[in-house]
Amino acid sequence: MEKTVEARAHANVALVKYFGKRDLALNLPAAPSVSITLSPLNTVTRMSFTDNDSDEIWLGDTLADSKFSTRISNYLYIFRELSGEHRGVRISTQNNFPTAAGLASSASGFAALAKGAARLFGLNLSEAEMSALARRGSGSAARSICDGFVVWHRGEKADGSDSFAQSIAPANHWDVRVLVGVTTTGPKDIGSTFAMERTRLLSPYYQPWIQTTHVNAAEAVDAIEQKDIEKLGEITEYSALAMHGAMMATEPPIVFLKGTTLDVFHLTRQLRKEGIGAYFTCDAGPQPKVLCEAKDVMTVEQRLREFPGILDVIHCSVATGATAHFIDHES
Amino acid sequence: MEKTVEARAHANVALVKYFGKRDLALNLPAAPSVSITLSPLNTVTRMSFTDNDSDEIWLGDTLADSKFSTRISNYLYIFRELSGEHRGVRISTQNNFPTAAGLASSASGFAALAKGAARLFGLNLSEAEMSALARRGSGSAARSICDGFVVWHRGEKADGSDSFAQSIAPANHWDVRVLVGVTTTGPKDIGSTFAMERTRLLSPYYQPWIQTTHVNAAEAVDAIEQKDIEKLGEITEYSALAMHGAMMATEPPIVFLKGTTLDVFHLTRQLRKEGIGAYFTCDAGPQPKVLCEAKDVMTVEQRLREFPGILDVIHCSVATGATAHFIDHES
Repeated sequence: MEKTVEARAHANVALVKYFGKRDLALNLPAAPSVSITLSPLNTVTRMSFTDNDSDEIWLGDTLADSKFSTRISNYLYIFRELSGEHRGVRISTQNNFPTAAGLASSASGFAALAKGAARLFGLNLSEAEMSALARRGSGSAARSICDGFVVWHRGEKADGSDSFAQSIAPANHWDVRVLVGVTTTGPKDIGSTFAMERTRLLSPYYQPWIQTTHVNAAEAVDAIEQKDIEKLGEITEYSALAMHGAMMATEPPIVFLKGTTLDVFHLTRQLRKEGIGAYFTCDAGPQPKVLCEAKDVMTVEQRLREFPGILDVIHCSVATGATAHFIDHES
Repeated sequence: MEKTVEARAHANVALVKYFGKRDLALNLPAAPSVSITLSPLNTVTRMSFTDNDSDEIWLGDTLADSKFSTRISNYLYIFRELSGEHRGVRISTQNNFPTAAGLASSASGFAALAKGAARLFGLNLSEAEMSALARRGSGSAARSICDGFVVWHRGEKADGSDSFAQSIAPANHWDVRVLVGVTTTGPKDIGSTFAMERTRLLSPYYQPWIQTTHVNAAEAVDAIEQKDIEKLGEITEYSALAMHGAMMATEPPIVFLKGTTLDVFHLTRQLRKEGIGAYFTCDAGPQPKVLCEAKDVMTVEQRLREFPGILDVIHCSVATGATAHFIDHES
C-alpha cells in the first residue's frame, strides 16, 4: 500500500498587506508583507501516489473540477521536476472554514500542499526553500509555512529564490488575537490576483502604495519585536485602508469593502475611544478582522458578535507553521 | 429705513471633486472641479447695514456664536475694503437643509452672502469676480454662484484672480437629477479643510489624486457637453472613490464613508446591471448621492428610499445661479 502524507497548514492574516506583484508567473511581490499565522483556520491535505501519471484531486468528498485540478497538477509539476519522480498524486484536502470568501483559503491550501508534496516526493528543503515553493502556488501561502509572526521578503532576484517568508517571532512570543467577522460566505466578485493586476496597471496610487508598504513592513517588524499593540495596530489599519484606497482609485474602481466591513472599522475606533486596543484590517474580500491583545479579546468579541451584519465571529490565536508527516493509510 | 438685500444661492454637488488647496488663505484649489448647482437645497440670506460698525449675524432665529460671527465679519471686510464703506451689517440666513452634515451648506451660504454683500455694498462685479469673491468665503461657494453645470478653474495666479467658476451649460441644458440619501443629520467628525490639509500633507496618494483630477475635470466637461450620462457617471464615481481612497491612505486614516454610504455605491452598481444609469458620489461626509437622468429617477428614488439605513431622500434638479435683489424691508 502506498504511504500517505498528511499535511496541515494554518491560514494567515497580513497586517502589512501583500497587494501587487513584481512577477506574475512566480508570484513575486512588489513589496514585503507581515502576517500572523492563525489558528484554528486550517487546511488538512492527504496525499499519496497514484498508479499512473494522472492526478486525482478531492475537495472533501467532491472530485475537483477541471480548472481547479489542472491548477494543482501544474503546481505539482514543480515537485515532480525537483524529485525526478514523474508520478500521479491523489490528493484529498479539507478546509475548516469557508473557501474563496476572503478568508485566504489559498494560503493554507497551498502551504499544506507544498509541505505535503515536499514530504511525499522526498525533498529535503530548508524552511526558506519550502516557503518559496509554497509562494509559487499562491503568494500568501509563503507566509503560512512559518511559525507565529512572519515577514515575507520581497527579494530582488528574478528567479524568486530570495523571496520567501520567515518567522520574526514564534507563536508564543505574544498572545494577540484576531477576530474574523463573517459577513458573507459567498464567493468573491473577482479574485485577488485580478484585482492586484488591475490596480497595478490602472490605479494612479499603485506606486505610492508600494513605496509606503516597504516602510510599514519594517515598522511592523519592530512593533512585533517590541510587543507594541498600539504601533502594530496603527500600521495594520493603515495598510488595510491604503490598500483598499489604492483599489478604489483603479479605473474602473475596485471596491471589496462592504458597508458592514467598513462599519467594523468605525467600531474599532469607538472601542479605542473607550480604552480598548482593537484594530481593524480587511483583505481583498468583505470579511472584517479585528486585532487585539488577549486581555481585551472578550470585550472585543462580544461587541463584534452583537454588531449588525456580523453573522459569526471566528476567534483566532497565533499559530505554528505548516507540518507534514506520513500516516499509515488514507482512511 | 435701511434697504434690505435678499440673496439666494443653491447648494452644488461636485462630480469631479475639489479636495486639496494650493493656497489655504485664499481657498485656491490644487486642481479644477466640476459641479452641478442643485435645487431645492438653498440658502436665503437677508442683509442690511446697521447703524454702527459691528455686525449682527442671525442663523434663522438664533444669534450666531462668536466663532461663526467673526468668520463672517472677517469675510465681510473684503467687501468693506472694495467699496470703501466700513459699515456694520445685519445678516439673517436660513438653509432649507441640515447644516454641517456633508451637504455643503457652506457653498450655498457663502455664495448667497457674497452675492448679497456685493449688492448691499454697491459693487458692480462680473460673474467671474463674484465667483472668486465667494470662493474666499468657502472654496465650493465659487461654484454655487453659477448656473447649471459648472467648472471651477484652478487658475495659476498667486492672487487667485483667475480661480473662479463658470457655467459650462445652463440648468436647462440637460435634465439630470441628484438624489441625496440622508443617513445622519449630525455634524461631521472633522471639517473638510482640515481633512484636505491632512491629506495633502500626510497621504502618499495626494499628488496622483491631484494629477488625475485634472484629467477627470476635462473629461467631465466633455461628457456634460455631449450629455453622455455613462461617461459622466463613470468619472463621477471614480472621482469620489479616488478622493476617499486618498483620504484613507492619510496617516492616521481619514474615513468619512460610513457603511450605508458605501452600500449605496454597491446599489448603483446593481442598478446598472439592471440597465438603469445610476452613479454614486459622496463628499467629505456620510451622505451618499446618486446621479441619474430624469427618465430613470423614479426607479432610482424608490430603490434608494427603501434602502436600509437611508432615513430620507432629497430629490434635486439642476438649478440656476445665485441671485440678489433689494426688498422693501426686513420682514
